[in-house]
Parts: sequence; structure tokens; C-alpha cells
Amino acid sequence: MGIAFLKGHGTQNDFVLLPDPDGALELTTERVRALCDRQRGLGADGVLRVVRGDALADEVPESARSEAQWFMDYRNADGSIAEMCGNGVRVFARYLVEDGWVARGADGGADFVIGSRAGDRPVRVNVDGTVTVQMGHARVTGESMASVDGLALTGVAVDVGNPHLVCRVDSDLAALDLRTEPAYDARRFPGGVNIEFVSDLGPDELSMRVYERGVGETRACGTGTVAAAAMAVYGAGQQEGTRTVRVPGGAVAVTVGPNSSSLTGPAVLLARGELDTGWWQAPD
Amino acid sequence: MGIAFLKGHGTQNDFVLLPDPDGALELTTERVRALCDRQRGLGADGVLRVVRGDALADEVPESARSEAQWFMDYRNADGSIAEMCGNGVRVFARYLVEDGWVARGADGGADFVIGSRAGDRPVRVNVDGTVTVQMGHARVTGESMASVDGLALTGVAVDVGNPHLVCRVDSDLAALDLRTEPAYDARRFPGGVNIEFVSDLGPDELSMRVYERGVGETRACGTGTVAAAAMAVYGAGQQEGTRTVRVPGGAVAVTVGPNSSSLTGPAVLLARGELDTGWWQAPD
Repeated sequence: MGIAFLKGHGTQNDFVLLPDPDGALELTTERVRALCDRQRGLGADGVLRVVRGDALADEVPESARSEAQWFMDYRNADGSIAEMCGNGVRVFARYLVEDGWVARGADGGADFVIGSRAGDRPVRVNVDGTVTVQMGHARVTGESMASVDGLALTGVAVDVGNPHLVCRVDSDLAALDLRTEPAYDARRFPGGVNIEFVSDLGPDELSMRVYERGVGETRACGTGTVAAAAMAVYGAGQQEGTRTVRVPGGAVAVTVGPNSSSLTGPAVLLARGELDTGWWQAPD
Repeated sequence: MGIAFLKGHGTQNDFVLLPDPDGALELTTERVRALCDRQRGLGADGVLRVVRGDALADEVPESARSEAQWFMDYRNADGSIAEMCGNGVRVFARYLVEDGWVARGADGGADFVIGSRAGDRPVRVNVDGTVTVQMGHARVTGESMASVDGLALTGVAVDVGNPHLVCRVDSDLAALDLRTEPAYDARRFPGGVNIEFVSDLGPDELSMRVYERGVGETRACGTGTVAAAAMAVYGAGQQEGTRTVRVPGGAVAVTVGPNSSSLTGPAVLLARGELDTGWWQAPD
């Protein structure tokens, strides 16, 4: 018997899931790297280890301890630990419900809380298989500038737990060259910033591309779509509202309120199986 | 029950295997593309469908029909059909032996023939799990020129069923910039040419990087390593000889004789499982 795994994605941000209720797997940096390597391993943007909330108590910072039944132990493809992943948490939640670890309610959906190093995340797995995640308050903190591909843009700074700068683009969004990192005000964002480029598709619909700090352009960024919707809703003078945000990897729906936000998007589980035990012991 | 698959690689050229003895799977272009998509699917350079030799008789060109018990139905990641893949055939052969479809002999190895659209390939799965593939005659056809990264190089043209140009590099091979296609004599190679850049690591050992026509730099190219070894052996005035060829994805051993060649290299099967049936019906 090998090591159980699943492969899934949320708006094409893709993950290897490792069901490990008791936290028994020795998930070394080398194994995470090998798993995520797209030629040597299964290939993924990151690993989601599925453990019971009390199984990793010793490894989790005090601030992140919770009563949540399940904990999302997320690792980046380079083996480092990450606090949270907005697309990953949807895939994680769907797995728990699909495999019967969390029961559906009478209405066919399942409401529960997932623990993470960034704290608890309330989620709802909907009847249609999409997942809604509470994302907290998306706080507009001012304006700033960015420039890329010869364009100088004014953007709205939004804090969604991590920093974002949302820039409206009047020219053809699909034609924008995002192969190099946009320039931004490093005094304003000393730890870097995720930069969203958006254009309107209709009164309630945005198109978005994103340059993630330290990564480059990606097909989706969950917190980035929340920042974009907050810019659009609050910028229109509304206290609350919902926007469909289309990203290269798919589409999500974001609702922002006066002090809260939620993101509803797809979660796909496409394959499951076992890793060869010898490979797991010494990946090659 | 879903669709059975395995994931494997040969010197980091990676594949999804679909065991389908009776040729029952409807392997559409769309499904191959979704399977090989590294975010939406499992991700791979190509798909190896494992079918019995007589199962696809109607789909195989007359010239490729054979008595081989197993046929390698190879598809590129874009869904197109390819005749042969020197790294893929090792992974294919190892799977057949590991899963008991082909029996090992008294010496622990297994000798058999795999059918392909490029004709029959005699293979041997060795006791240590490496696989040796007969690659036919590597024929030196003359000299030609290539230039890349500011270097003008003289190369040896070698035909291994497909065209190669093997160029010795005196400067630091690892530092060579291969992000753009090298220039070559298009009158000499009207259909394009795979270009190998090699340097000596010792009397019997070469380091090699390769720019594959239509693809770009890859981590390994089976026929390219045969071309490089042929250049080295014949160029040293020998009729036959063996060379270890190190590529970014690993190392292989190539033996060339007066009219034949063989390649021995690793074949890794790291995971197996099932694809979700709903996803297979309509990949998303």
C-alpha cells in the first residue's frame, strides 16, 4: 500500500492533497518539492495535507490554534510553509465533504470551519459543488501607482490580510505584457504587493489578471479577486455588492459587505490514487 | 470506478499511462489535452496508452502493423499523434513488466518487442529497473554549422530516424543561453533539426543539452543522446563503444556499433490511481 493522494484545482491553482488525519506522514521539504515537481513528481502549485485539528497542535503557532475539526497544512511548491491559500481551501473543503469526513446538512450543503496557520476559515460546500469561503474584511487603504508594459496606472490599495493594488486598465487587458514585474512604490509596500489589472465586462462583472509578488503572473489569486471586487463595489459608492470576477483560470463570485467578504468558486477533484512507497522514501 | 492511470517519467520526460488492453477508451484530442494540462489535469509531456497489439489494428498504418503483443499509442500533450518517444518507451516497458503483463525471464530481466507507429522496438527491462531500447543505426551524414548565444559552432549531422546536429562546446555548457532557437542551415535541414550541445566529462562520459525542433530546450531527448554518443564514438575512430550521456533530467548509457545502437536509461513509475469519471466525461 502506498501513500494516498488526490489531485485537484480551484480556478486552475492546482494542488496535491495528502489525506493524513492523524498527522502521521513525515512531510519533508524534499518530499514536497518532489511531489510538486511537474516532471519528476505529480506536479502542483502546492501540497494540502488534510489533518485533524488536534493532530498537529505542537507544530502550529499559538495564534492559529482553534477548535476546528480539520486543519489545512499548506506547503508551497518550494517546500516552504504558507499560512493560507484561498483557492486551496475550496479544494480542501470539497474533499472533506465528498469523502464523508464532514456531513452535509438537510439542505444538501455543508457549513463548517477549517483551521489554518492564518486562523479559522468558515466555509460552505454548496449543493452544486462550488465552495464559499469567508474572507474577512477587505479594507481600502488609499491609492498608489504602478507601471507596466509602458503604462502608468493609478490603483486602489486594498488589504485582504495581504496587500493588493488594484489598477483599472482602459486598453486591451489580454494584450498587457506581464512577463516582468510591474514597478510600484516600494516605500508604500515595503514587503511587496500583489497587483491586479482589471477592466469592466458589465455592471456586475470584471475581467482580471494578476501579478503575484514573488511568483509572477498566475491564472488565479483568491484574495486578489476579493480586492478587485472591493475596489469596484466601494468605488461605486456602495456598502455591499457582488461581482463576478473572471480570471485566466475561470470565474468566481465575490460578495463584499461593510466589514466582510466572501468568495464562491469552483473546486475540482479529478484524480486519486497512491504514491509508490519506494518513491516516497527516496524520490527520484 | 474511474479510469485507471499511472504517472511516470524517463529522465524527467513525463507521461500519463492509460492501461487500456482492449482499446476501449475513447481517447479524444480534448481528453489528451486536459490530462496533460499541468494545472487543469494531471500534467505530462504526453499520454502513453497501453493496448494489445491487435486492439488498434484498424487505426494503425499498414507499415506499422506487427506481431508485437503490446502497442504504444503515444499522444503529444497537444493531442496530436506521435510515432515514437525514446523516453516514453522505457516507462511503457517497465509498466508492462511491473504489473505482470510481460513475464521476466530466468535471469530476472524481460526481453520483448513493443509495437509503435514507427515500427517495432525491441526492449529489455533489466533487473535493476532500467530499460534498454534498440535504437537502430545512428548514421553520420556529414558536418554543418549552428550558432547560438553569440557562438558559431561546427557540428556533426547524425540521422537516428530523425535529424540531429551535434555540436561540441568548449565554453561552459551550463551557461549557454538556449532560450531562443539556434540558427542552422535550413537548406541542409529543410524539416528542421534537433541540435545537441555537448562537452566531454571524461573519456567515456559526455554532458549534453538539447534544443528540440518545435519544442525548445528539454530536460532529455533519447535520440539526441544516441546522436551525441555516435559523434563521440565514431569521431574517435572507433567502430563501437559506450558513452554515458548526462542530460539535465538524468543520465543514460548509449552503446553504438557499426550498424546499431542501444540506449539504457531509468524508468520511474511514481503514482497510480483513477481519474474521476465525471471529469473524464467532461474535463473542466
